[in-house]
Amino acid sequence: MKILEDRIRRDGIVREGNVLKVDSFLNHRMDVELFREMGREWKRLFADRPVNKILTIEASGIGIAAVAALEFGVPVVFAKKSKSINLDQDNYVTQIESFTHHRTYDVIVSRKFLGPEDHVLIIDDFLANGCALQGLLQITKEAGATVEGIGIAIEKGFQPGGRLIREQGFRLESLAIVESMDPETGIVFRE
Amino acid sequence: MKILEDRIRRDGIVREGNVLKVDSFLNHRMDVELFREMGREWKRLFADRPVNKILTIEASGIGIAAVAALEFGVPVVFAKKSKSINLDQDNYVTQIESFTHHRTYDVIVSRKFLGPEDHVLIIDDFLANGCALQGLLQITKEAGATVEGIGIAIEKGFQPGGRLIREQGFRLESLAIVESMDPETGIVFRE
Repeated sequence: MKILEDRIRRDGIVREGNVLKVDSFLNHRMDVELFREMGREWKRLFADRPVNKILTIEASGIGIAAVAALEFGVPVVFAKKSKSINLDQDNYVTQIESFTHHRTYDVIVSRKFLGPEDHVLIIDDFLANGCALQGLLQITKEAGATVEGIGIAIEKGFQPGGRLIREQGFRLESLAIVESMDPETGIVFRE
Repeated sequence: MKILEDRIRRDGIVREGNVLKVDSFLNHRMDVELFREMGREWKRLFADRPVNKILTIEASGIGIAAVAALEFGVPVVFAKKSKSINLDQDNYVTQIESFTHHRTYDVIVSRKFLGPEDHVLIIDDFLANGCALQGLLQITKEAGATVEGIGIAIEKGFQPGGRLIREQGFRLESLAIVESMDPETGIVFRE
């Protein structure tokens, strides 16, 4: 998606250690007009899919998912992260590992809000190793919901998450795929 | 706001200990069409104020703030919660106490995204004791930003947060104010 790639080139900051900071428009300050364009693009890409719910994970997925949901005319459910072990028959619970924060989270969705009747579009801001996304897929599987697709804002194409998800047969639409990046030479996007 | 009060009456669950669960439409499953109506109402109420930024706090404020921001045509900045002490000259940091979770959080906003040029509308889902809100006000004060107003979805009018904020002279618009609630007899809203 050209406007997102242009924005990443303009305002993204590449740091050593494969860090791409996009906090000026995506995940701290949020450019909601850009989110609206992203929502429209996912709506175009998934026009053939009977999406009735968007699933995301706190915190930085929530804003993108909420604005995109307006384009789809469906509600959002966001998975909650908890550091405490939560054994609760009212919730789906799975564990994900965060490379950024070097710890393991419980990810929780209430059973009330996800079930076999749901046709889910999963939306998140980043896809790198795919740990958060695999957690959300595990929860949709446990719920018996159908995953109609996955919409990601920025995929780090040089990390394995996207390839693994596609190999599992999911339809994954990343609006910008970073093929390589370097603090000196900048960002190359996948064609 | 009648449609919000009606929705709270229909789908809110009152539990012992002054707990009002609205997770089916506000803070776990999110009814984004309702959020759009709430955003329009805040836009109407704050039409005379030169808002150029919306400030909220993760996680449950983000969806409401993002959708409301579309009505205002401004970006959102969301404050991040951290349990680690974060001494960082790049950030505004303050502490808030969570009654719900019985612990103290650091609340963090990057200095890059809030400054004296900003005219801020603060938005959040709940106002009870007002701890989170006082933290956001502290950060806007440290940033030298102007607080044009505060928009809350549900205020618990029987707890002191709203009164204290109004006594400080802030313009606070809560779309539903719960005067009293009881698991047996239900909810009474302030006129």
